[in-house]
Amino acid sequence: VLMAETGHFAMLWQKMAEKLALEVEFLPGDWRRGADPDAIEKRLRADSEKRLKAVCVVHNETSTGVTSRIPELRKAIDAAKHPALFMVDTISSLASIDYRHDEWGVDVTVAGSQKGLMLPPGLSFNCISPGALQATKNARLPRSYWAWDEMIANGKSGYFPYTPATNLLYGLREALKMLLEEEGLDAVFARHQRHAEATRRAVRGWGLEVFALDPREYSASLTGVLMPAGHDADRARKVILEAFDLSLGTGLTKLGGKMFRIGHLGDFNDLMLMGTLAGVEMGLGLAGVPVKKEGVQAAMAYLAESRAQPKRAAA
Amino acid sequence: VLMAETGHFAMLWQKMAEKLALEVEFLPGDWRRGADPDAIEKRLRADSEKRLKAVCVVHNETSTGVTSRIPELRKAIDAAKHPALFMVDTISSLASIDYRHDEWGVDVTVAGSQKGLMLPPGLSFNCISPGALQATKNARLPRSYWAWDEMIANGKSGYFPYTPATNLLYGLREALKMLLEEEGLDAVFARHQRHAEATRRAVRGWGLEVFALDPREYSASLTGVLMPAGHDADRARKVILEAFDLSLGTGLTKLGGKMFRIGHLGDFNDLMLMGTLAGVEMGLGLAGVPVKKEGVQAAMAYLAESRAQPKRAAA
Amino acid sequence: VLMAETGHFAMLWQKMAEKLALEVEFLPGDWRRGADPDAIEKRLRADSEKRLKAVCVVHNETSTGVTSRIPELRKAIDAAKHPALFMVDTISSLASIDYRHDEWGVDVTVAGSQKGLMLPPGLSFNCISPGALQATKNARLPRSYWAWDEMIANGKSGYFPYTPATNLLYGLREALKMLLEEEGLDAVFARHQRHAEATRRAVRGWGLEVFALDPREYSASLTGVLMPAGHDADRARKVILEAFDLSLGTGLTKLGGKMFRIGHLGDFNDLMLMGTLAGVEMGLGLAGVPVKKEGVQAAMAYLAESRAQPKRAAA
Amino acid sequence: VLMAETGHFAMLWQKMAEKLALEVEFLPGDWRRGADPDAIEKRLRADSEKRLKAVCVVHNETSTGVTSRIPELRKAIDAAKHPALFMVDTISSLASIDYRHDEWGVDVTVAGSQKGLMLPPGLSFNCISPGALQATKNARLPRSYWAWDEMIANGKSGYFPYTPATNLLYGLREALKMLLEEEGLDAVFARHQRHAEATRRAVRGWGLEVFALDPREYSASLTGVLMPAGHDADRARKVILEAFDLSLGTGLTKLGGKMFRIGHLGDFNDLMLMGTLAGVEMGLGLAGVPVKKEGVQAAMAYLAESRAQPKRAAA
Repeated sequence: VLMAETGHFAMLWQKMAEKLALEVEFLPGDWRRGADPDAIEKRLRADSEKRLKAVCVVHNETSTGVTSRIPELRKAIDAAKHPALFMVDTISSLASIDYRHDEWGVDVTVAGSQKGLMLPPGLSFNCISPGALQATKNARLPRSYWAWDEMIANGKSGYFPYTPATNLLYGLREALKMLLEEEGLDAVFARHQRHAEATRRAVRGWGLEVFALDPREYSASLTGVLMPAGHDADRARKVILEAFDLSLGTGLTKLGGKMFRIGHLGDFNDLMLMGTLAGVEMGLGLAGVPVKKEGVQAAMAYLAESRAQPKRAAA
Repeated sequence: VLMAETGHFAMLWQKMAEKLALEVEFLPGDWRRGADPDAIEKRLRADSEKRLKAVCVVHNETSTGVTSRIPELRKAIDAAKHPALFMVDTISSLASIDYRHDEWGVDVTVAGSQKGLMLPPGLSFNCISPGALQATKNARLPRSYWAWDEMIANGKSGYFPYTPATNLLYGLREALKMLLEEEGLDAVFARHQRHAEATRRAVRGWGLEVFALDPREYSASLTGVLMPAGHDADRARKVILEAFDLSLGTGLTKLGGKMFRIGHLGDFNDLMLMGTLAGVEMGLGLAGVPVKKEGVQAAMAYLAESRAQPKRAAA
Repeated sequence: VLMAETGHFAMLWQKMAEKLALEVEFLPGDWRRGADPDAIEKRLRADSEKRLKAVCVVHNETSTGVTSRIPELRKAIDAAKHPALFMVDTISSLASIDYRHDEWGVDVTVAGSQKGLMLPPGLSFNCISPGALQATKNARLPRSYWAWDEMIANGKSGYFPYTPATNLLYGLREALKMLLEEEGLDAVFARHQRHAEATRRAVRGWGLEVFALDPREYSASLTGVLMPAGHDADRARKVILEAFDLSLGTGLTKLGGKMFRIGHLGDFNDLMLMGTLAGVEMGLGLAGVPVKKEGVQAAMAYLAESRAQPKRAAA
Repeated sequence: VLMAETGHFAMLWQKMAEKLALEVEFLPGDWRRGADPDAIEKRLRADSEKRLKAVCVVHNETSTGVTSRIPELRKAIDAAKHPALFMVDTISSLASIDYRHDEWGVDVTVAGSQKGLMLPPGLSFNCISPGALQATKNARLPRSYWAWDEMIANGKSGYFPYTPATNLLYGLREALKMLLEEEGLDAVFARHQRHAEATRRAVRGWGLEVFALDPREYSASLTGVLMPAGHDADRARKVILEAFDLSLGTGLTKLGGKMFRIGHLGDFNDLMLMGTLAGVEMGLGLAGVPVKKEGVQAAMAYLAESRAQPKRAAA
């Protein structure tokens, strides 16, 4: 399979490959950008023997706060006239950022319960196209989770082949009701976009740099922040945790110490975001990181201005 | 009984008096100040026939954010050489603001579960001096809650005379463990004082006035804020609730529309306070109230500075 | 007021009377029977000066498992052409045993959250007739709970005059949904009747006597059981609690040691009842009480036979 | 690997084998008996080339209620002087039936959270001997769960390589406290043994047959019950579920319709067991299965008799 290198979580396929005898080719990428449609098209065109069986992409890199433009990647595969399956990891985007499995022509979508679905970890989801189902029939690679036949056969009568996490299924029913009925998916996506924009304004207010470079690829569920040179992000994270009980995401693998991440997804509202940004602003100061104290102010200005509309956003 | 008029909740005794055939005399007071020791001493000296049976005070007026100085009031009663019982309502101060029933010579302390004890409403507590117990033996006023004999008799064997709220008693055990063992009462009180000071700095940063006039009487559990003349506090509260899902306390009875209240008690930390203050600052702006956007900044400066100590406060 | 003496809870009015300066006259009664319509009619006819202001009855005596026949008591009051208000305590019957405030011509119904409504204690309910509301306007007795004006005035806008037990109100909403929508009140009542009948068959299977004498007055929510002479009910209760973690009700006041009570109300099903009855049968044996080991068998025979209908009862 | 065929769950290794390219040889067995030490010794002796890498056994077959005698199986492997690893599935025995990984010389023990540990499903546990760890270093089979290196490396600092089920870890801490401190493991095991014996007496009281043939192999956590010839177990299970909301285990694969299973493990006490057995006895009658109505009585006799000791078992 061809894996677009976009960050730490994409690179985890390397480990999976080692463990499961899977052959993975990484398409080199800039971690500050999403997967590159042109590079993918070019690589697929070069694969005249059609040895690549799948193109894999992480929709929203949790390690960087960069999204990939899925519809454009689909177009790239089509333009190359390549039969590879298109597989997308939506762990940290599903139910937080707009995503369309069918409409965007994805073959396998993978998701989890513990981010936008607001549940504890313990459920994962596969959405599978007819083409992927067909491919699995001839596949010879050892597999367990991706052996869908049993799940599909049992699911027809509402059962699971093994012990199901019943309590999480009740939680899922409630979460879906909150997302689809009480707030509405469009409002959920708009809320996340708004909080992401407020966070970016705070980052710039501090005089820092948002990790993602292309505005089309800004994540709505988390924001990566580059540390000023010479300052260790993990030391600042530790100060913030100890002073304000606020746990920020660390920079992973090659980004270790160079950036931190602010999450703003799930059951989250304006004032929880302001508490978060205040904790970062105060904590960076306590850690001796040279930042301007204008981030919280900038975020508040944006939130208030964008709230000065008639409609009340979901609480 | 002599009731020191310090705010709405003190005035509720009027209703209780009507219902329960209790004779109440109100000692006039300025709602922006706590009960006045000199006035109480003077009134008691004037009561040569000792007709006043009790002096009642609200320790922390929830309607105003003003505390009364209980030890000084005790001294005033003693100075007047008057036998009246001293009764104190600690509903919104117990476990948030330092309070000492025995040391301060209080006869009856009344408290509830739903504030500093972090529980749902449903439990109330009476702490009773030997003098008060003695007085109840000869009292002829009809009473139910204050008929302590049954509770005391049953309590000796760990029972209640009627159906107890068992679930709240389990909650209480946990709350006491959090307060006394995990955080420690001194740290709890210091945390509330710190949040109150940060709130007052925010109020002044907005160019508004803290309702309480005497710094010795500032409440650590809530802060009353005066609105600028010509602006309706309840309209602003409504805007804030709708825009940010933040519910502020209203001005009660004669303060209606003239002030609002910011609560900062119980299971509360720095970033919850910053979320709250950000909601007020943004919301006052949305409501068209002419405030300076310097309150959040002032609160952050104070919180960060006072956190720049080695020790980590409880999370 | 005239209070029909039917058991311990009726007698508690004596305490209330002492505390609240209420004048109570008890109409003597046999605790193994409900309130006697003829005796009430006779007493009211004798009250030519109409000094009795209310007739009070406990619908389901929790201390004995005996119900009073409310519609017949109403007829007795009417027959006596007496203007006394009719007040009924439904603490342990509401939502377990059929009860009709309006249809049965009751003036004040009192209920609580902690029995048939399946909630923790903390809410109580008053249902008030226009006549009772009118009477309260001229009443001079000191009162607090029964001072309904404030509650009614605030309730119009959905508020409470004081701190409400919000969490219990959410619980109540859910409980009402379970009772009215999911199971249906008729099914709830039938379930309780069925469990009560199974319990009585168990009692007779043990060779013991049901406390209630008149089948029209059997309680559907609990069953009182007479101990054989010479055996202490409380000792047996202690053995059962220690051996099987099953807590039975004690005999109250004059019934102390002479009877015990088996509760079967609220969120309760056939197998919970069978567990309960098995605990009693085993425990009485362990305590050396001479009972036949035929109670559980008799209850199972009845439950199975009455279940051998097509319809599935609520789980 | 050599898998001792003891029931449905042992046979699931066939599926795993298909999926993961694992070579599994089943040692034929009688499902009504545990794994046979002699047969294992014989098979291992025949493996002169030491091609068998592991001997796998299910400690407590959840599908039958039969346990295997682990210490005797270890002796059999030792007697054969064979280097195969010894792997044991304790899913439905851990924390319900005595089990000793080190003392019994097991190399890999597998367990889950959802049975004796009284938690929702979502955690699994591997206990690994130094020999197993060594073997994994050279193993070339693709694997994910059994790739322990990352878990061990991360675990040293208290972390997980991937998103942990934090809420279940809190639950585990509480469950362990209940098992080890509050009740004590010995009392837990004794409680399960006692409930199993009571259940077997009920089965015989009904005139039915316990599925397990060898008393040394009776399961303490569930009991399999053979249906009389000509009666469908699944039809009876359906009647019992609908009449009494009691869900019994079904017969799996080749036992379908021929038996049912009564679980008695985890957070379970005497009266819950009696409710369960009463449901089975009543339900078998309703389903027209010809059973004697003497099972509940026999179980009660045993429970009462074995409780007639001074010590109170855990509630």
